[in-house]
Amino acid sequence: MPEFRYYHPIEVRYGDLDPQAHVNNARFMTYIEQARIVYVRHLGLWDGGSFQDIGIILADAHIAYLSPIVFGQQVRVGVRFARLGNKSLTMDYSIEDSQTGEQKATATTVQVAYNYHTGSTIPIPDKWRKIITEFDNLGTPS
Amino acid sequence: MPEFRYYHPIEVRYGDLDPQAHVNNARFMTYIEQARIVYVRHLGLWDGGSFQDIGIILADAHIAYLSPIVFGQQVRVGVRFARLGNKSLTMDYSIEDSQTGEQKATATTVQVAYNYHTGSTIPIPDKWRKIITEFDNLGTPS
Amino acid sequence: MPEFRYYHPIEVRYGDLDPQAHVNNARFMTYIEQARIVYVRHLGLWDGGSFQDIGIILADAHIAYLSPIVFGQQVRVGVRFARLGNKSLTMDYSIEDSQTGEQKATATTVQVAYNYHTGSTIPIPDKWRKIITEFDNLGTPS
Amino acid sequence: MPEFRYYHPIEVRYGDLDPQAHVNNARFMTYIEQARIVYVRHLGLWDGGSFQDIGIILADAHIAYLSPIVFGQQVRVGVRFARLGNKSLTMDYSIEDSQTGEQKATATTVQVAYNYHTGSTIPIPDKWRKIITEFDNLGTPS
Repeated sequence: MPEFRYYHPIEVRYGDLDPQAHVNNARFMTYIEQARIVYVRHLGLWDGGSFQDIGIILADAHIAYLSPIVFGQQVRVGVRFARLGNKSLTMDYSIEDSQTGEQKATATTVQVAYNYHTGSTIPIPDKWRKIITEFDNLGTPS
Repeated sequence: MPEFRYYHPIEVRYGDLDPQAHVNNARFMTYIEQARIVYVRHLGLWDGGSFQDIGIILADAHIAYLSPIVFGQQVRVGVRFARLGNKSLTMDYSIEDSQTGEQKATATTVQVAYNYHTGSTIPIPDKWRKIITEFDNLGTPS
Repeated sequence: MPEFRYYHPIEVRYGDLDPQAHVNNARFMTYIEQARIVYVRHLGLWDGGSFQDIGIILADAHIAYLSPIVFGQQVRVGVRFARLGNKSLTMDYSIEDSQTGEQKATATTVQVAYNYHTGSTIPIPDKWRKIITEFDNLGTPS
Repeated sequence: MPEFRYYHPIEVRYGDLDPQAHVNNARFMTYIEQARIVYVRHLGLWDGGSFQDIGIILADAHIAYLSPIVFGQQVRVGVRFARLGNKSLTMDYSIEDSQTGEQKATATTVQVAYNYHTGSTIPIPDKWRKIITEFDNLGTPS
């Protein structure tokens, strides 16, 4: 898997753990969600204000669990756009131990460009396409 | 502690548990929150539509933890209004094992009547006061 | 998609909602996790006691989000085993509105048979294979 | 309220927010829980290994909500021991905006010294009493 240009650190909370004393599987979704939103704000696609303006809605998520995360481990999530369709944006993630580099999980999500004010899907705005393509070194969008 | 006229059942989720294999303490807040909202809808104080119309905001919460809750136990939350001020509404809760009656926790929360559209506190509406006083057998409001 | 022989009802909690006022995407994982565990107990594969004896560990999860879930909707999760490997067990899920039948999401997870006491993967026990194959009408396991 | 000698930073997660677009009230409990556990490890009362060795169990919690927390705010939790009884340990918390210093909530919890291996309460170990009294400048324990 190629490198990521953006990583977001996550603090493992006691409240993320389940009776197996490792991070509950649903929290992996919370970790990649957090990385996604911070990343979208970082790129300037969202101004960090109203969530009505966030412009994407989740359509599909896949997580491969590789190794458990325990309390006290320092974790980071690599996140990037992998592919842009007409309306859909595919993102890849890598959840890693920041200190050892051990990969804890990989994930892929598909979002659809969405206008929350009208409640309808929209083509990816040109401005988004330009910013994303440049930052994540995407080739010609398919 | 007096009896409750309204109880709401809660299913304990695996996702509510922590490494001690009992329900995490923060989830007790989620359980009483769920009972509170369903109860407010039950009384007709909220129509179940927009959360902008729910009319109360939490100001204070106290929970006394009496006994752990484990997976597979059937739980219910007794909820009632205990006291009405000018703007504040105090509610009492009892988290119980539905089958054995064992009390798991007691809780009290104070809410303030709130207009989310204007972002300001308001006096308790007369209609609310009437409904609450009748349902929960409150005496003359203080 | 074929029918499910087992459904588990889920109460949507206020605490499951996010700023879009619908159930947060990570909670879908919690919903299917709950259905999975209750189902495994229902089949007698787990006795409902120690989670050290639950015998499976999650390896992979995929969710397709079809329609948002809002507060007050009655939800159920259809769950079944779809495929048994040597060590892996694939499960399918359907998250649905119990009243209208509208499908909210479909999901697939892959678990691996696991001995938590020794911390190692194991072949699926014959007893499990027999119970699962009969209940879920699986053909000859691949 | 006096100053705290220990603060723990918390990242507000999108997954902490509710339909009012602020941090859900139950998450305040998660925030102070995280601060408590990290603090107990910081003081050397817990070695950060098995949660069976953490030595305290929550008996009582009180939170006063002063101001909502929104996404993007930088938050920290001040935490300290306030009082030691024979078996009980009272802790105070202040949830604050790290940048403006605005106080978001105050909280108090009461823990009981607890041996998870035997499932019974115990007197506060002398070693604990010494460490805590010195670090938090407690006077003669009551």
